[in-house]
Amino acid sequence: MKKTVLGVIGAGNVGCVHIGNIMTAIPQAKLKCVADPYPAKYNEWAREMEYPEAVTDYKKIMEDPEIEAVVICAPAAAHGDLIMEAARAGKHVFCEKPFDYDIAKIVKAMKVVEECKVKLQLGFNRRFDHNFAKAHEYVKAGKVGDVHVIKITSRDPFPPAMGYFTAPGGEHCSIYTDTTIHDFDMARYLNNCEVVEVYAMGSKLINKDKPEITRDDTCVITMRFEDNSLAVIDNSWEAVYGYDQRAEVFGTKGAVTVENDIFSQATLNAREGIIAEKPLVTIKDRYGAAYAEEVRQFVLAIQNDTPTLATGMDGLMSIVIADAARKSAEENRPVKICELMPKL
Amino acid sequence: MKKTVLGVIGAGNVGCVHIGNIMTAIPQAKLKCVADPYPAKYNEWAREMEYPEAVTDYKKIMEDPEIEAVVICAPAAAHGDLIMEAARAGKHVFCEKPFDYDIAKIVKAMKVVEECKVKLQLGFNRRFDHNFAKAHEYVKAGKVGDVHVIKITSRDPFPPAMGYFTAPGGEHCSIYTDTTIHDFDMARYLNNCEVVEVYAMGSKLINKDKPEITRDDTCVITMRFEDNSLAVIDNSWEAVYGYDQRAEVFGTKGAVTVENDIFSQATLNAREGIIAEKPLVTIKDRYGAAYAEEVRQFVLAIQNDTPTLATGMDGLMSIVIADAARKSAEENRPVKICELMPKL
Amino acid sequence: MKKTVLGVIGAGNVGCVHIGNIMTAIPQAKLKCVADPYPAKYNEWAREMEYPEAVTDYKKIMEDPEIEAVVICAPAAAHGDLIMEAARAGKHVFCEKPFDYDIAKIVKAMKVVEECKVKLQLGFNRRFDHNFAKAHEYVKAGKVGDVHVIKITSRDPFPPAMGYFTAPGGEHCSIYTDTTIHDFDMARYLNNCEVVEVYAMGSKLINKDKPEITRDDTCVITMRFEDNSLAVIDNSWEAVYGYDQRAEVFGTKGAVTVENDIFSQATLNAREGIIAEKPLVTIKDRYGAAYAEEVRQFVLAIQNDTPTLATGMDGLMSIVIADAARKSAEENRPVKICELMPKL
Amino acid sequence: MKKTVLGVIGAGNVGCVHIGNIMTAIPQAKLKCVADPYPAKYNEWAREMEYPEAVTDYKKIMEDPEIEAVVICAPAAAHGDLIMEAARAGKHVFCEKPFDYDIAKIVKAMKVVEECKVKLQLGFNRRFDHNFAKAHEYVKAGKVGDVHVIKITSRDPFPPAMGYFTAPGGEHCSIYTDTTIHDFDMARYLNNCEVVEVYAMGSKLINKDKPEITRDDTCVITMRFEDNSLAVIDNSWEAVYGYDQRAEVFGTKGAVTVENDIFSQATLNAREGIIAEKPLVTIKDRYGAAYAEEVRQFVLAIQNDTPTLATGMDGLMSIVIADAARKSAEENRPVKICELMPKL
Repeated sequence: MKKTVLGVIGAGNVGCVHIGNIMTAIPQAKLKCVADPYPAKYNEWAREMEYPEAVTDYKKIMEDPEIEAVVICAPAAAHGDLIMEAARAGKHVFCEKPFDYDIAKIVKAMKVVEECKVKLQLGFNRRFDHNFAKAHEYVKAGKVGDVHVIKITSRDPFPPAMGYFTAPGGEHCSIYTDTTIHDFDMARYLNNCEVVEVYAMGSKLINKDKPEITRDDTCVITMRFEDNSLAVIDNSWEAVYGYDQRAEVFGTKGAVTVENDIFSQATLNAREGIIAEKPLVTIKDRYGAAYAEEVRQFVLAIQNDTPTLATGMDGLMSIVIADAARKSAEENRPVKICELMPKL
Repeated sequence: MKKTVLGVIGAGNVGCVHIGNIMTAIPQAKLKCVADPYPAKYNEWAREMEYPEAVTDYKKIMEDPEIEAVVICAPAAAHGDLIMEAARAGKHVFCEKPFDYDIAKIVKAMKVVEECKVKLQLGFNRRFDHNFAKAHEYVKAGKVGDVHVIKITSRDPFPPAMGYFTAPGGEHCSIYTDTTIHDFDMARYLNNCEVVEVYAMGSKLINKDKPEITRDDTCVITMRFEDNSLAVIDNSWEAVYGYDQRAEVFGTKGAVTVENDIFSQATLNAREGIIAEKPLVTIKDRYGAAYAEEVRQFVLAIQNDTPTLATGMDGLMSIVIADAARKSAEENRPVKICELMPKL
Repeated sequence: MKKTVLGVIGAGNVGCVHIGNIMTAIPQAKLKCVADPYPAKYNEWAREMEYPEAVTDYKKIMEDPEIEAVVICAPAAAHGDLIMEAARAGKHVFCEKPFDYDIAKIVKAMKVVEECKVKLQLGFNRRFDHNFAKAHEYVKAGKVGDVHVIKITSRDPFPPAMGYFTAPGGEHCSIYTDTTIHDFDMARYLNNCEVVEVYAMGSKLINKDKPEITRDDTCVITMRFEDNSLAVIDNSWEAVYGYDQRAEVFGTKGAVTVENDIFSQATLNAREGIIAEKPLVTIKDRYGAAYAEEVRQFVLAIQNDTPTLATGMDGLMSIVIADAARKSAEENRPVKICELMPKL
Repeated sequence: MKKTVLGVIGAGNVGCVHIGNIMTAIPQAKLKCVADPYPAKYNEWAREMEYPEAVTDYKKIMEDPEIEAVVICAPAAAHGDLIMEAARAGKHVFCEKPFDYDIAKIVKAMKVVEECKVKLQLGFNRRFDHNFAKAHEYVKAGKVGDVHVIKITSRDPFPPAMGYFTAPGGEHCSIYTDTTIHDFDMARYLNNCEVVEVYAMGSKLINKDKPEITRDDTCVITMRFEDNSLAVIDNSWEAVYGYDQRAEVFGTKGAVTVENDIFSQATLNAREGIIAEKPLVTIKDRYGAAYAEEVRQFVLAIQNDTPTLATGMDGLMSIVIADAARKSAEENRPVKICELMPKL
């Protein structure tokens, strides 16, 4: 089996998920090098697992001619620059979402990637999830007919830690740009159509007794697509019953609904009711397989020279829509995408 | 068993549902008189069923001292006037939704009802539906904690007939005032809180190839409540898989979801998949029991002198929100309820 | 609408269910007379509901030429004699299950019914239940192909009262003849094939600490049909989570499964799990509509002169199988139906 | 992380599942050697995956002092001898089910294992399945109270190939000893109680038009436990809608039910009904994770010197019950376990 040689930049939480997958679940890939500026915690785990220990200088990856592709799991503000550097080094790039917070830099990076003729895939792992991929397949096969309404519910099991807002780049963070961004991508993916207008209504409800937090933690976002079909997304940063990840595509021939995954199909029939398991709680349990599948598909796209399934343009559009949603919530008015869309 | 004597004004589709229920499913009520200006079709059915035939003049009901309460199923534009007339005749009133299209008249009717010390109940039958009532019970019992988000999906099995728009009063008709009005009431009922702002995004999708129809047939409506909790409603006039009536209340302790009723629990396990029955299709199948229960509760409120469970204020608020939603869709901006709220 | 005139013999629990249905839910029927030897309790309810009060002498029904059909809800030991008397009086007969405990009398009654050319329908109401009827429809339409295995689970919400065993005729009572008898009929109905052999394994588990009760309260019964397809029934007299009424027909093209009815589709998503409502608990909630439908179909069979949908033969076979099952449990061996089958 | 060194004997279908798991999904284990007398097909795959190639002589494993434990995936008739040889070589043993067809040899092997003080675990992977393990956990935690009835449905997606019966040892093969054996173990595991009597009713239905096949392909088996609780198992060799693997434990406090796993939670709502995915079809999809988990638990039992979770006694009992079931089907009578139970 041909094995594509990978390097991973950034060995934090998501980085470790990718590293574990490459080591065990993607026979088409081989991990040669991991880079992280503060590798101590990672290295302890890596020794335990007999995985490669990390170097501190990511340039080791950029300069290694044997490495064909890099997986970027660094902080979001560094994504654009790292993508350009990797592309110029002739390496294919898989980059975690968001593409970057700086839209001008995103546009520039897209050009560099094109010029350097390397593949770029953004980390929209939900496109590779068994549930959402199946819904997409039904839509694509025409099972729901013309799409009229898309609905997405995405609720995190736990609110982000405080440090999330005070960390460098925390001023960029919002429920729209960090949570809903996955849902903006999913809406575009399921509908195969571009968004033209967004209206967001947000509230601070979970944190209403914490004056130091001013950001919305709950929101409902309505969108209009080019063909006048509609979408609605609702988000919350805390669902006590688990990680709530549902979607629905409704159209002229019917609807496809995506319900939550649960740990087991064992159900208790008791005096109090019929008690099924609640949705999976952690990202790893819920999307572990999707994280592996997206990198496997990235490697296959390299090996077969086919387009990636989550492109730079997908990365750009999701952040533009997210910015529009944030603006809409701040100004309490519908915002047209063209207000924020850069020239390409 | 004490039996409250009723008269029914209007023997159209909904009138016949109420008449059938009073005759067979509400032992606490007795039907004395039915009035309808064009009773031929009704009378044929009534003779078949051995039910009272209709008089053409509804004044017969107003003037009959034995009749304690009237059930108004006349066209919406006549509701306010009929309510006032009945109240002045000392009769309790059950009136189908909407209260009226004329908000000034609604306010006047509410005052007359109050002065005449009669009961008034609006026909928000979904409050009496087994599914929605159970959800309400869970919320009231604190099972979902503080409410953060309410979601309602309401899709009709078939679009309204053309004549619906061209009939007298048809210019008042819209998806917001005729379909969503139930959902506006349900959102208030489930949240037990008042709406302060509405944003509606609508589209003409089902009828996109019929230029003679200009109204929205699909919409997504976002609302903010006084306590900053949010609601979202999506409507469509045509769901090929049945009458889609779902809701969800999400809060700090969990969520309650309402799924569709189905005709049977027989499921086919076949090569093509696991095929369950689709949602009930007709209003009578889906809400037949709720129609009976609302009138039974109305009669009990009279017999026990307790408040009705869908008041004049509920009728007023639902139409004010509906007008705000229509205005929002027309002007593409969030509309505050106070812009349209009458002085009381 | 043509109305068939009925008399009801026996105004106990089941009798009242039928009486209420005839009065409110079966427009094709008219109740003229009720007979019960101890009518005090019934009459109190009947006055409240404005239903006909009961006479004490059932002969009033037999002798009334206007009464076209009788509904027999008397104790089981009297069924055979009452059926013959009604048939000889020229009345169609609907009789509650079991047909009778005395097989020779059943055979005799079947002959009298045939000679008198009246309709006879046995009270196997589950054949008219929305769930089981739908399963039957799937099987009949060939959706499961050739039937291989039938499975029925039938668990009562509460064990029978002690008096059940000590009442006259209580010595006939057993889980096999009183509970499973419905399931024997259902197995024959779903498979459209005759049973040839039965093996029953029973236990006293619910009542294991009550030495005065010696009967099995839990059992598993296996059956072979003429075509070598198999069936298995499991019964219990106490399921704390409600009235558990499920079935499954498995064959070459798939399977149809019948799950329990629940009161509402409102589900609580909580920290402890996803909690749906438990199955309906009472016979009236679970099978109320089926009780109405079976009598409605009986009346239609009379009006249209078509065969009834639960015949005397169905009544005979179910009691023969029940006796075979009881014998099997007592002797711990498979029992062939031909050992107990009477000559016809 | 401590890594236990393993050798695998037998690189057929199941062997390859274990090998893949040890290489990728069990970080606590290391695969040193694979042995198979006809390794060509395996070696091709192993080279592709960069896994160890196979030696032809399994003695290489027995004699390697570094190998701490063997995983036996050889034909069933060789199990007992291989277990004894491995135990005498001081190696812990994981052995696929069935333990052996020869009960005397099983008893002997149990003694050798005991004398040699090695661990023995039988391959009852379903005990480690997320669904069945959760059901077991509920029962153990007392959630269903005293167990009254256990029900297991186990239907294969495809019938076994013809060669299955004509291969050496094929005369031992039957639905009871090869399919139901898993269910016999599951019934004992869920109930934590011993079986005392078995009655099996079997039919040849799938293969009814193939005279050359004489074995039952469909069966229903009833069992009585020591405490008089009951169990029923139904098996079929062909379910067109997938691999049907369900169970239910019913008791004084309620019931726990295990439904099938499905590939995705995407459901199509269409004119024809609500279509969910069918159960997973292949053993690898359905039980892949359980195969990994059982070996992981075996390795942990070695590392922590704790008892294995599927013992030699479990292996013995399942084959004794299977023999009793086969005898019962052949002689059409209930068979007591003590008729076949060896002296220990």
